[in-house]
Amino acid sequence: MIIVGEKINTSLKGVTEAVRNRDEKFIQDLAMKQAEFGADYIDVNCGTLVDEEVEALPWLVETVQKVVNKPCCVDSPDPKALEAGLKVHTGIPMINSITAEETRYNEILPLVKKYQGKIVALLIDDENGISPDENVRIKIGENLIERLLADGIPLGDIYIDPLIQPISTGSKMGLVAMNTIAALRLKYPEVHFMCGLSNVSFGIPGRGLLNRTYIAMCMAHGLDGAVLDPMNIKMMSIITAGEALLDRDRFCKKYLKAHRKGTIQN
Amino acid sequence: MIIVGEKINTSLKGVTEAVRNRDEKFIQDLAMKQAEFGADYIDVNCGTLVDEEVEALPWLVETVQKVVNKPCCVDSPDPKALEAGLKVHTGIPMINSITAEETRYNEILPLVKKYQGKIVALLIDDENGISPDENVRIKIGENLIERLLADGIPLGDIYIDPLIQPISTGSKMGLVAMNTIAALRLKYPEVHFMCGLSNVSFGIPGRGLLNRTYIAMCMAHGLDGAVLDPMNIKMMSIITAGEALLDRDRFCKKYLKAHRKGTIQN
Repeated sequence: MIIVGEKINTSLKGVTEAVRNRDEKFIQDLAMKQAEFGADYIDVNCGTLVDEEVEALPWLVETVQKVVNKPCCVDSPDPKALEAGLKVHTGIPMINSITAEETRYNEILPLVKKYQGKIVALLIDDENGISPDENVRIKIGENLIERLLADGIPLGDIYIDPLIQPISTGSKMGLVAMNTIAALRLKYPEVHFMCGLSNVSFGIPGRGLLNRTYIAMCMAHGLDGAVLDPMNIKMMSIITAGEALLDRDRFCKKYLKAHRKGTIQN
Repeated sequence: MIIVGEKINTSLKGVTEAVRNRDEKFIQDLAMKQAEFGADYIDVNCGTLVDEEVEALPWLVETVQKVVNKPCCVDSPDPKALEAGLKVHTGIPMINSITAEETRYNEILPLVKKYQGKIVALLIDDENGISPDENVRIKIGENLIERLLADGIPLGDIYIDPLIQPISTGSKMGLVAMNTIAALRLKYPEVHFMCGLSNVSFGIPGRGLLNRTYIAMCMAHGLDGAVLDPMNIKMMSIITAGEALLDRDRFCKKYLKAHRKGTIQN
């Protein structure tokens, strides 16, 4: 499972202030903790600071990479901010995100090619937006993958985000994203997936339980990446168990090690 | 989800003594507790008491049904004991189990027809035994379902047990049972499944976590029944969450009710 640590995001408590004050220690603590708890990428997102994002995003990348030997997931709706962040990034970054919308596709593709990053691809196009119909969403995914392939992006660099939506707004929303993963996994075994899961439980109590249950279900259909808080022990426990059950953890080595270290919770 | 409460089984602590002493109260407490915690069927199994099973099994059925308004899952390898239990059962029983083995099939089929019970069908045949190959296991399932249909058993009365085996004995064992469920669900949308899950984690620490993660994964592929301890709150929590996520719980009504009652655990 490819884990993107989500904690360095100005929509979360304390992070806006830390970015505004250029508080290296605060940001670096978050980065180091997430890496320690198993993050493969450190997400950096200061999209809420619209005015200063172009300066703040590269500062975040550099601040994080001074202390952790991990790539960042450089995360912004603004291509200028993305490019500023990518310019100072060391190693192979993850870029979050491209879509099938014409303008956005054309803005982001050159960055993916220039920085040879992994690319998170959201299943949105101009005609349908975020479709509630799983067949439409799968079709958007197929078109987006084919277009990226035609533009020279290797399948293994594409991380599809199926766009998980709350079951409180539509009782089939859990199925829609899960079945989209299943269909694209079947057609493109080498493609990756990357999504934020917590949306699924928005507006319902007991969100942690719903999020954990849902990640196990999506993993069973091919989900191999998630943006989450790696310090969430219960969530990481179910992921570690899931990998063992799906034969993605040879001899249950990672599972048994985590069990010995006490980093999973029964 | 169809829950079969597993606690009245002479292989479990205290039950052998209670059956030997015909201790009604002990058995009835177990039955009532399981019904209260959501069991749809109460399993009765005294297979370890080989000598007296033919007398003890009907006693168990009657003892249970005196206090709970639920059907039993009458569970025995011995057709004589099964028949003795079925004879005194009120309502539509579940019969555990038939297989594709010639002798067993021919012994059990008449009971299924006579008592019009739901039938748990284990994926075992004479040629392969329990096959570690998922394609063989799916084929055994297809053959067994077709034979039961030809013999007049309705698809909706068949509860396939895919026979979950420990990942400690073969790293693909989790996938084998899960993929068997998925393939049979796709081909026979009306068939049911019924299995004991805890085998998957045999020999590995943190069994509860593995069992819970695995049930979510199997539910995502169509599992709709399990033999388990309904008083296991964590297990029942993930099942309740899973039903909501898979749109099997209209307006999350059962989930929200369980949350209010505190019978699920976040």
